[in-house]
Amino acid sequence: MEYPQESFVATTFAPGSFWARRREVVRTQTLRHQLQMLRTTGRYDAFKLQWHPSYSDPPTMWPVPNHQFWDSDIGKWIESACYLLMDHYDEDIDNAVRELVQMIRSAQHPDGYLNIHYSVVEPGKRFTNLRDMHELYNAGHLIEGALAHRLYYKNDDMLSPMLKYVDLLAETFGGQDAQIPGYPGHPEIELALLRLYKVTANEKHLKLAQFFIEERGNPTGGREGRHYYDVESEARGENKRTLPVYFPAARSYWYQQAHVPIAEQETIEGHAVRAMYLLTAVADLVRISKPDSQVGATFLPVVNRLWSNMVEKRSYVTGGIGAIKQWEGFGIDYFLPQGTDEGGCYAETCAAIGVMMLAERQLQIELDSHYADVMELCLYNAVLTGMSLDGKAFTYVNQLASSDKDLSERHEWFECACCPPNVTRTLGYLGGYVWNYSTIEQKAVVNVHLYTAASLRLQVSESVIEITQKTEWPWKGDVNFTIRTEGPPVDLELRLRIPGWAESWQVTPNAEQDIRKGYLYLSTKWLQQNSQFQLSCLMQPRVTKPHPLTMQPVAYVTRGPIVYCVEDADHPWEQNHFKMTIFDPKVPLQEEIRSQPDQYVAIIAKNGAKGELDTSPWDRQIVSEGNDHVTGESRDLCFVPYYLRANRGGGQMRVGLRVE
Amino acid sequence: MEYPQESFVATTFAPGSFWARRREVVRTQTLRHQLQMLRTTGRYDAFKLQWHPSYSDPPTMWPVPNHQFWDSDIGKWIESACYLLMDHYDEDIDNAVRELVQMIRSAQHPDGYLNIHYSVVEPGKRFTNLRDMHELYNAGHLIEGALAHRLYYKNDDMLSPMLKYVDLLAETFGGQDAQIPGYPGHPEIELALLRLYKVTANEKHLKLAQFFIEERGNPTGGREGRHYYDVESEARGENKRTLPVYFPAARSYWYQQAHVPIAEQETIEGHAVRAMYLLTAVADLVRISKPDSQVGATFLPVVNRLWSNMVEKRSYVTGGIGAIKQWEGFGIDYFLPQGTDEGGCYAETCAAIGVMMLAERQLQIELDSHYADVMELCLYNAVLTGMSLDGKAFTYVNQLASSDKDLSERHEWFECACCPPNVTRTLGYLGGYVWNYSTIEQKAVVNVHLYTAASLRLQVSESVIEITQKTEWPWKGDVNFTIRTEGPPVDLELRLRIPGWAESWQVTPNAEQDIRKGYLYLSTKWLQQNSQFQLSCLMQPRVTKPHPLTMQPVAYVTRGPIVYCVEDADHPWEQNHFKMTIFDPKVPLQEEIRSQPDQYVAIIAKNGAKGELDTSPWDRQIVSEGNDHVTGESRDLCFVPYYLRANRGGGQMRVGLRVE
Repeated sequence: MEYPQESFVATTFAPGSFWARRREVVRTQTLRHQLQMLRTTGRYDAFKLQWHPSYSDPPTMWPVPNHQFWDSDIGKWIESACYLLMDHYDEDIDNAVRELVQMIRSAQHPDGYLNIHYSVVEPGKRFTNLRDMHELYNAGHLIEGALAHRLYYKNDDMLSPMLKYVDLLAETFGGQDAQIPGYPGHPEIELALLRLYKVTANEKHLKLAQFFIEERGNPTGGREGRHYYDVESEARGENKRTLPVYFPAARSYWYQQAHVPIAEQETIEGHAVRAMYLLTAVADLVRISKPDSQVGATFLPVVNRLWSNMVEKRSYVTGGIGAIKQWEGFGIDYFLPQGTDEGGCYAETCAAIGVMMLAERQLQIELDSHYADVMELCLYNAVLTGMSLDGKAFTYVNQLASSDKDLSERHEWFECACCPPNVTRTLGYLGGYVWNYSTIEQKAVVNVHLYTAASLRLQVSESVIEITQKTEWPWKGDVNFTIRTEGPPVDLELRLRIPGWAESWQVTPNAEQDIRKGYLYLSTKWLQQNSQFQLSCLMQPRVTKPHPLTMQPVAYVTRGPIVYCVEDADHPWEQNHFKMTIFDPKVPLQEEIRSQPDQYVAIIAKNGAKGELDTSPWDRQIVSEGNDHVTGESRDLCFVPYYLRANRGGGQMRVGLRVE
Repeated sequence: MEYPQESFVATTFAPGSFWARRREVVRTQTLRHQLQMLRTTGRYDAFKLQWHPSYSDPPTMWPVPNHQFWDSDIGKWIESACYLLMDHYDEDIDNAVRELVQMIRSAQHPDGYLNIHYSVVEPGKRFTNLRDMHELYNAGHLIEGALAHRLYYKNDDMLSPMLKYVDLLAETFGGQDAQIPGYPGHPEIELALLRLYKVTANEKHLKLAQFFIEERGNPTGGREGRHYYDVESEARGENKRTLPVYFPAARSYWYQQAHVPIAEQETIEGHAVRAMYLLTAVADLVRISKPDSQVGATFLPVVNRLWSNMVEKRSYVTGGIGAIKQWEGFGIDYFLPQGTDEGGCYAETCAAIGVMMLAERQLQIELDSHYADVMELCLYNAVLTGMSLDGKAFTYVNQLASSDKDLSERHEWFECACCPPNVTRTLGYLGGYVWNYSTIEQKAVVNVHLYTAASLRLQVSESVIEITQKTEWPWKGDVNFTIRTEGPPVDLELRLRIPGWAESWQVTPNAEQDIRKGYLYLSTKWLQQNSQFQLSCLMQPRVTKPHPLTMQPVAYVTRGPIVYCVEDADHPWEQNHFKMTIFDPKVPLQEEIRSQPDQYVAIIAKNGAKGELDTSPWDRQIVSEGNDHVTGESRDLCFVPYYLRANRGGGQMRVGLRVE
């Protein structure tokens, strides 16, 4: 199965398990809460194309009107709803989806055009600002919504208007004389078109995605052999000194990954979500075209080097990406401060979701546990932290340390509301990330990327094969597999990811250690002899450090895939965001199983805070011979999972604690 | 004497001494080199008000035309020339000054207006863009030039046109209905007007400076009760999204220290040179108005808190200020990376000169060695590094570490040429920084801020008193004082600064340790008994560290007032800007007296580089349990004074070396 958004249907999470409980909250609370937010903010009815008072509001992020993303909010909510309806029918949700789809259908122009802003607020200006406006981004999310809709409703009520819109887009954009040689400022439609192509097999859909990817950043792609965005902005009457808030300088097209053609990009730059959505599409184009094709040979090295640059030099311990607030994206190599008052930290929830999307695409090209390690890291940390335990409050930015200016806190919604429904849909099709698989005739290959209490049920020719994981992951490292076959025997091959963080592991009964790029390959023969077996990964507290060139004199406490933080809820004495707390990484770390406000393992460091940072030698001095840096009493520290932060009041939090 | 630009005339540097040699280079090489640059670039003839081809060049820093600063370049060169002519007559220099002054006089409009750009390029647009254009800044530098001119030539050839211009300005700017309620985007005229007031005693000059200072940042100072810069930019037809390159966002008036009235500013923000020139004027206004006046009570706390914020949280070890390139100024507290590839470092030469100017003003208000320590630090490091040993090559930015993108190198001139003539004039009146003094009847008080081989000759009533320092400072910490009086005895009181870096010191013969705020007060009585005495300060290599919250895991080698660096000239093996070099701060530091390319003390650390930073545990990892961080062989390190950098080829350099 090529896409997790489809393959997830074969997965069932064990009731009461870690993710089952989370998805239950999403289904019963989050979807309804978000539907309510859509209604009260005006989004729900927006496809009726009536004027809404907020359309007159000045843009929070000039030049992007605040309602610019509304189409995508609807698209992502529909997508989420359809994934979750597959689990349990919910009449209210079903009715809302049906009504929304009717409104979308009725909003379509006779020529196929479909967009709220350019229908109501600026009619006649469609496709005049691809750089800043989210017209094609919105189209992409509506396409993704339509694909999910089709999966659940098994009709084309939403897909057919989208196909008509895509026809218009394919006619409008391209390299022919009568076409617009432009591409979206915010990638998204590319990956949506490639998913659509899987369903339609219509080459036009593949070609349009490929055009957007290949044309991007062409310095001579616009009229008169100039950059398309230059030509476009001049046509709008803007001078090059009229800068969107996210441009630090004129022509900062690296913000949109359009400074040079993608094939020439050496480092990962600009807006992190855009970069991830774009690379997800590029990786998928490589996969579809095959890595050894001309397209593959052009783009696979790009995906690999930008991924490496990101993971090795521009990622946070939580999997979060993006240090710079102004452009919601990447800073220079190793520039990874923990919070606002230390130089910045953004780590937008959507960006981490994008890392998961990209990692999953790369796993399809090359089965290497490195990608799955990062995918798991993001899921349990930078992504999961984006939603409260009750499913009704969210984060957009996920800093590693709070400050007086940016407390560690949650909000029920955002003006730019991309993150909340993005988490919702990700948890909706989460099963698709756990494993991927292929079946041919009587053979099946299953790659297990994530461990969690769940089962995968596959139809393989005349047989059904069911693979079940029993585990208390992420709190315990033992995973018990059971393989059951109904019907004639199936030649199953199973590849188990060995987590990079597992300092030791074993399989019982013993199996040949056929490890390739971090996956343990279990042969058909061995599996036929062992329909039950256990993978056991050592899961214990670890103290890790960031790359020395990050200049962060800190240590992190992690355990399995979980990154920990300290919060004021457990340390009522803290008033300075743990900025001055000196952690002694040598004290023993004790596990404490807790059940409030959720089940989790806390980690206690007795006398772990050996004191506070003493800066007195620097009073009225630029430099000083210094001292041993510690003053005051030692105190206990209690580490809790980062994803759990901001669920127990407070607002002070830190992941990396100072160790000198 | 209130101003070092006047009081310096009483000081003579001992021939062949550290500063005498430097000033000799400036007099014989730099002045001529800069005159040549003025001629070849078009600046020299610019007051003829003819069109120059470069006036059509697009601005390097929009919206500021490249020739915008030309008036000030001329002003600062005249100022420098006049100071140095006091030492030695030079016919070529004299002729050039005379010719320039004639051109300036001929360029004056009948109403007094005087500015190259608005006479030639945009006539009729004078005073329409105070925020960005340097009209009043230029006027300030011309006033300063005129004051120096008057000091040397003892006529008003240059001062009289400036007085006429100031009359126009005083008429034009102010709080009356018919006046413009504006103030300069780049402060400078304020401090020049206050110096002018000393000469003219014309209250109009004081009041105009005070208006510019008090009106600055007034949120309701412009028409319709809005910020003056808002009103002004709208009148130019700009929308608020049209951003100068140095504005990271709309209305970034903190760039010009005009975001709120000066009295309300809590932290030092924006463009560093502007901040220093502004605060120098504010401090001088406090001094003139007396600290306990209404004006003093309003502004002295501002000067003190902005100074503290700067020195304690936003200054580099060299005395340099400004981490951020975009606005050539201050970042957030403790954000002090060493170079471009680590997050930025600017430390403009002019800004450090501004710190010296401000520190000197503060010493006049409160005799506290803290200010003189910072003044000395800047002089020997962030300022002195701005000019090559041969006096013909300069730096503008003074990073603490080079990178491939920004090598440690010098240039013969700059498009925006503020720094070279600023160093020249500073060395021209350097004697004024060494000490300040006051005389009343038969009494004299002399505060010695800096130690150097020089003598001060004062007329005190009927007598002349001469105070001579013999010393090899900054290489040796012994200073031999001789006091000679011609005529009736003078009641002299002497205050000697005890440098903050001196771990021990003594005076011989022994004197009572009457120390107040870091100055040793030597009484009239003791001085009458001891007309020769020695101050001896322990001057030896020290290893110091930045404030822990800077997150810089580095150590510095300093000795006396000199900050050291390592350069590739002494380490031909270095290829990575010493970024990966691990310094062992515990190895003995040996002094080595060198005479090439100049006399100085190098510091040798045998096996000081204990290896290179080992980052292999982080390969393909975001975090790691790490290691001891060191790989490879130990090697010797050779530290040379930072000011000496980029005089021996190369381009790789670092001040703070990694110690972990």
